Amino acid sequence: MSLELVSTTKCFEGEQRVYKHRSKELDCDMTFGAYLPPVAVEDKTACPVLYFLSGLTCTHENFIQKSGFQQFAAKYGIIIVNPDTSPRGVELPGQDDAYDFGSGAGFYVDATEAPWSKHYKMYSYVTQELVELINSNLPTLSSKKGIFGHSMGGHGALICALKNPGLYQSVSAFAPIANPTECPWGKKALAGYLGADTAKWASWDATSLVSQYAGTPQELFIDQGTADNFLVAKQLLPENLLNAASSNDHIQTVYKQREGYDHGYFYIATFVGEHIAYHAKLLNA
Amino acid sequence: MSLELVSTTKCFEGEQRVYKHRSKELDCDMTFGAYLPPVAVEDKTACPVLYFLSGLTCTHENFIQKSGFQQFAAKYGIIIVNPDTSPRGVELPGQDDAYDFGSGAGFYVDATEAPWSKHYKMYSYVTQELVELINSNLPTLSSKKGIFGHSMGGHGALICALKNPGLYQSVSAFAPIANPTECPWGKKALAGYLGADTAKWASWDATSLVSQYAGTPQELFIDQGTADNFLVAKQLLPENLLNAASSNDHIQTVYKQREGYDHGYFYIATFVGEHIAYHAKLLNA
Repeated sequence: MSLELVSTTKCFEGEQRVYKHRSKELDCDMTFGAYLPPVAVEDKTACPVLYFLSGLTCTHENFIQKSGFQQFAAKYGIIIVNPDTSPRGVELPGQDDAYDFGSGAGFYVDATEAPWSKHYKMYSYVTQELVELINSNLPTLSSKKGIFGHSMGGHGALICALKNPGLYQSVSAFAPIANPTECPWGKKALAGYLGADTAKWASWDATSLVSQYAGTPQELFIDQGTADNFLVAKQLLPENLLNAASSNDHIQTVYKQREGYDHGYFYIATFVGEHIAYHAKLLNA
Repeated sequence: MSLELVSTTKCFEGEQRVYKHRSKELDCDMTFGAYLPPVAVEDKTACPVLYFLSGLTCTHENFIQKSGFQQFAAKYGIIIVNPDTSPRGVELPGQDDAYDFGSGAGFYVDATEAPWSKHYKMYSYVTQELVELINSNLPTLSSKKGIFGHSMGGHGALICALKNPGLYQSVSAFAPIANPTECPWGKKALAGYLGADTAKWASWDATSLVSQYAGTPQELFIDQGTADNFLVAKQLLPENLLNAASSNDHIQTVYKQREGYDHGYFYIATFVGEHIAYHAKLLNA
């Protein structure tokens, strides 16, 4: 599995890189960001890897350009990798018709419905192919992995962790779509990618997964702005996940509400340092 | 002079605002960013104001979204205002033909050549109209002002300060176009806005202004990445300004070279905290 280096730019003494590669899982070319902290660049010291999953409409660029995360990755010596949000460059009918389905909206599931099932395997891409690619090309501590994300990507981070007990040592989410089977965004995406049979949706729903979780104890750090329009619109439903977690001893939650913050990148920028410090502690960075 | 609030978003406990207003100087509507630190929002404490001038092609958005400056403005209790880089919404022939002249490329001069002279008065806008607007609408310490900028905006910050001894208590520049009368970008812009008579250009050239400066002693903090393509291409010429300063006792320079950094926003993001700390010290923030 080979990577093409698209760009590398010095940033906080480390390097913000962008890579391109052919994905077997998604059957298309994919682009992702990888920030290497100074210790990884200078000494090739093996570092923990923290994966960030972005929200609807994003490419790999948004988080790289707008969150200011690099200063904290540099400080704690963590490699941060952020993939794109869907397959790209494929030609599927209707893929560009809406912002919340298809391109930019892969929802981190493995689609089973045609025509999406040929390419839309973002879950397997993120949890397997991308991890193998990173571990074989960058100086990583392969046993030290964390995952976080925003909105649709918060949902992605939660389900990737909950479906793979022990795979990630740290998990957090900014304003996640916490119960997609019960919100308009999630119902549209799950119906489209998985079909109309709602019984098949539960295994891709963080709240359902929390209810059923019986693996190694897992803490979930959930972050939510109180002035988030999508919280008000019942697209996020963190309360449902918290309720489910309260009756499962295998899941601990840390829930932080941020007074007056909305759903956007200024909110993420304000708290990304706290999240990375949280991951660093759990990853022994 | 009234301001229309376009948006306000909570960020690092302060507010990132965007305002729109009718500019008399430019005879068009203009948009700018204004970050208010927590103390200005919560207590309406009067704060120093630091003006940031952006580079070629930028609007008010680039610095707001990509530099991560807000955390430092919040920390030091400074209001940071960043205007657009040219008049907007005017209809002048050829204004959109090139990235380095016309729209997005006002060069912070007062044009004397038709048709530009009707609108392109960015120098007067930045040093007078915008300052009056800010002082009459936001909780400012009107006697505490700093200015900084990037590339074309670094040139702008330097000439605004050098042409007005004592107006700004602190001045810094990221990779400024330090001697525009001697570089391709500058020659094109100055010829277009001021006419072919090169004798008229010197009063808009930071290096010339440094040579002639006889005002109250002024320190200039110049920042430059060593891997900056535009440095190599002789568009920036900081060495000329430093040489001029070395023979003028009224000007002190602090010159920092950043090994391996280029001309872009990852470079700015890495060092914007150091710049704001510098301004804060001089502004007694």
